[in-house]
Amino acid sequence: MSTNPLETSANSVNPVERLAALVGSDIEAVDAVIHSRMVSETPLIPALAAHLVDSGGKRLRPLITLAAAHQYGYRGVEHLKLAAAVEFIHTATLLHDDVVDESNLRRGRPTANTVWGNKPSILVGDFLFSRAFQLMVEAGSSPVLAVLANASAIIAEGEVMQLRSAKNLAIGEGDYLKVISAKTAALFAAAAEAGAMIAGAEEAHSRAFYEYGRNLGIAFQLVDDTLDYSGRQAVMGKSVGDDFRECKVTLPVILTLARASEEERRFWRKTIEVGVQEEGDLSRAIEYLERGGALGETIGRARTYARAARDALSLCAESDIKAALAEIADFAVERAY
Amino acid sequence: MSTNPLETSANSVNPVERLAALVGSDIEAVDAVIHSRMVSETPLIPALAAHLVDSGGKRLRPLITLAAAHQYGYRGVEHLKLAAAVEFIHTATLLHDDVVDESNLRRGRPTANTVWGNKPSILVGDFLFSRAFQLMVEAGSSPVLAVLANASAIIAEGEVMQLRSAKNLAIGEGDYLKVISAKTAALFAAAAEAGAMIAGAEEAHSRAFYEYGRNLGIAFQLVDDTLDYSGRQAVMGKSVGDDFRECKVTLPVILTLARASEEERRFWRKTIEVGVQEEGDLSRAIEYLERGGALGETIGRARTYARAARDALSLCAESDIKAALAEIADFAVERAY
Repeated sequence: MSTNPLETSANSVNPVERLAALVGSDIEAVDAVIHSRMVSETPLIPALAAHLVDSGGKRLRPLITLAAAHQYGYRGVEHLKLAAAVEFIHTATLLHDDVVDESNLRRGRPTANTVWGNKPSILVGDFLFSRAFQLMVEAGSSPVLAVLANASAIIAEGEVMQLRSAKNLAIGEGDYLKVISAKTAALFAAAAEAGAMIAGAEEAHSRAFYEYGRNLGIAFQLVDDTLDYSGRQAVMGKSVGDDFRECKVTLPVILTLARASEEERRFWRKTIEVGVQEEGDLSRAIEYLERGGALGETIGRARTYARAARDALSLCAESDIKAALAEIADFAVERAY
Repeated sequence: MSTNPLETSANSVNPVERLAALVGSDIEAVDAVIHSRMVSETPLIPALAAHLVDSGGKRLRPLITLAAAHQYGYRGVEHLKLAAAVEFIHTATLLHDDVVDESNLRRGRPTANTVWGNKPSILVGDFLFSRAFQLMVEAGSSPVLAVLANASAIIAEGEVMQLRSAKNLAIGEGDYLKVISAKTAALFAAAAEAGAMIAGAEEAHSRAFYEYGRNLGIAFQLVDDTLDYSGRQAVMGKSVGDDFRECKVTLPVILTLARASEEERRFWRKTIEVGVQEEGDLSRAIEYLERGGALGETIGRARTYARAARDALSLCAESDIKAALAEIADFAVERAY
C-alpha cells in the first residue's frame, strides 16, 4: 500500500476524481449553487470568496455529501444545497484559520488575508458561514440541520482548543487527537452523515457514514501533519514548515518528544515553546523527525484511521461509490509518499 | 419629547426595565439558557464569552423577542431559545467588531481582544455564532430559523459594506442608511419578528414587529453616532471619539460635509480620509458638528425612525407590552440628551 495510488488503484484515475465522475453532474450543480450564493451587492464579498472557492480545492467534503446521498438512491436536489453549505463552512473556517495562523500561502497562492487584510477575511468568513446556514435551512431537514449546526460548534471549539495547545509541548497524543477530531474530522463526519440522512438512510447507515467521515478526516489531518515536514511545496500548495514556524505542536512532534534526548528536548523547547527559530532549525527539526521515525509512526496512525474509515462502510451495499470512498481512505494516506 | 424620559414616562421606571418586568421571569430564564450554552470543555470559551455576556448589556434584543411572543399570548418555551440565540448572534458580532475596529473599550471595560487577543476573540465569536444556530434549530420552527439565518447574512454583509465605507467621505446618507440597516437594524428586526412568529402571530403582525425592530435599530444607531461625539464616557461605556479615531464616516459627518466650508472640508479630509489626527482635532470635529447642527439633525432623523417604530405597532392590540415597546422607541432618542 505504500506505492503510488495512481499505479495501484483498480482504475488509473485518482479516486477523488473517480468519485466525482460517479456523482455525475452533481459537482457542477453544487458549484453553481456555491457561485449563486456568493453574490452580494458588496463586490468585495464575491471577490474574496472566489479567491478561495475557485482556488482549485478538491471539494472533497461536498463530494462526500453527494456520494453518501447517491449511495442511498437519493433523487431530490436538497443534497446540492447541503454540499454547498458544507463547502461554505469549510471556506469560512479556512478564512478565519489563515487570519489566526497569520498564514501567507494556501493552495499555492497568497492567502485572502495577505491580499485583502484580516478585517475583510474575518467578515467575509462570517458572511459565508451565514450563507451556509441559509442553505441548510432551505434544504428543509431539521435533523440534518442539527447535525451540521453541531459540527460547526465543535469545529469552533476545536479551533479554540488548538489555540491553547500552541507552543505547549506538554500536549499528549490524546489531547491532540481531540483537537483534530473537532477542528478537522467533525466537518468530514457531518458532511458524510448529512448526505446519508437527506437520502433517508437508516440510522445505522447514517452513523456508518459519520464514522467514515470522522476517521477519514483524522487520517487526512495526520498525513497533512507529516507533509508539513516532508512535503514539497508544489504538491502541498502551502509552504513546508508552516506548522513549525507557527510553533504548532502536531503529532510528529509529540511522538518524537516522547523519546527525545536531552539535547533534542532542548531544541524543541527553544524552537516551539520559546519560539526562537534560527537558520537551519527547520532542517534540524526534519532530521530529528525522520531519524527518530516520528513521521513514519504518524503515517502508521493515519493508516489505522483510514482502515477504520473503510471498515465503517462494511454494512453498506457494494457499489462503485462505496469502492471509490474506500479508495479515498487509502489515498488519504498514500499522499504521504 | 426632548425632556428626560425618567420624568415624563407614565411610570417612573426606564421603559427597558419596565418591559423586562412585564415578561416576568423570562429574562432570568434566557440568562440561564445563555449560561448553560456557553459551557465548553475548553475553559477559555466560557471565560471569554462571559466577559461580554455578563458585562451589563441591557439584553434589549432578546427582550424584544420575549415581548413580541408575550404580545401574542405565547405559552411555550421556545421563545427563550430564540432570545438566547439573538443575544449570542449579537455577542459574536461584537467580538468580531471589536477585532475589526481594534477597539479597546466596550461597556466601560477593556474589550475581549484587549484582554485575550484577537485570535480567541475571532474563534469564540465563531463558537457563539454556532451555538446560536444550535439554539435556533432546537426551537424547531423553520420559518423563524430562516428569518434569523437571513438576518445573520445581512449583518455580515453590512459589516463588509461598512469596511468599504471607512475613510470614504464620498459616502452619502443613502449608502450610510443601507449600512446601518444591515449591520445594526437587521438583528433588531429579526429579533422582534421571530418573537411574534414563534407565538403564531398573523403575517401582518409579524411584519409589524419586523418594522418596529428595523426602525428602532436605525434610531438606536443614529443616536449612538451622535453620542460618539457628544456623550460622556461614563454614560456610554465606550470612549468619546471612537468613530472619529477609527475614521468612520457616520451620519453626523455626512450631514456636516454637505454644507462644509472649504476649510472644514480640508479638515475632514485630513482627519478621516488621510487619517492624520493631531491633538485638538477631536475637539475641533465636535465643534464643527455642533455648530453646524449636524448632531441635532442626526437626532432629528433618529426621531423620525423612532416614530416609525411606534407607528409600526399601531395594528397591534393595546397592552402594557405595546406601551412599553413604544416608549422604548422614544427612549432610544431621549438617550441623546
